[in-house]
Amino acid sequence: MKAIVNIYLKEGVLDTQGKATHHALDSLGFDSVSDVRIGKQIILEVDTKDKAEAEEQIKDMAETLLANTVIEDYTIEIV
Amino acid sequence: MKAIVNIYLKEGVLDTQGKATHHALDSLGFDSVSDVRIGKQIILEVDTKDKAEAEEQIKDMAETLLANTVIEDYTIEIV
Repeated sequence: MKAIVNIYLKEGVLDTQGKATHHALDSLGFDSVSDVRIGKQIILEVDTKDKAEAEEQIKDMAETLLANTVIEDYTIEIV
Repeated sequence: MKAIVNIYLKEGVLDTQGKATHHALDSLGFDSVSDVRIGKQIILEVDTKDKAEAEEQIKDMAETLLANTVIEDYTIEIV
């Protein structure tokens, strides 16, 4: 079973990577861009048949290791 | 208009970040995971009304700056 975990900085946390990319896009003449935010996308292959069980396990992984929940939010999508 | 650009290492390129995360998950007892791949997700806010035009612009940005097309693939999603 394949799962996608998207990890983002929480609202209000300064996204320096996004700001730098926005600035670089501006410098290159892409002035139609008004905001850039950059996150991580983690794709996991989990050997579980049960969707609910997989979701539970991946939530556990996200809380324990994948995301820094002090400054980051995450979403889990089972595909 | 909001656009999501997902950027991944091409098949065959060693994903060291993914391998390290996989190893860390194993060490923590999450042994049901068989593969981990890590990519970037860039969320852009573009001031364009036309979807096709936005897609064209973002493709240009991805090729020029966002992705390293030697080792990375990308997908564009307009939402």
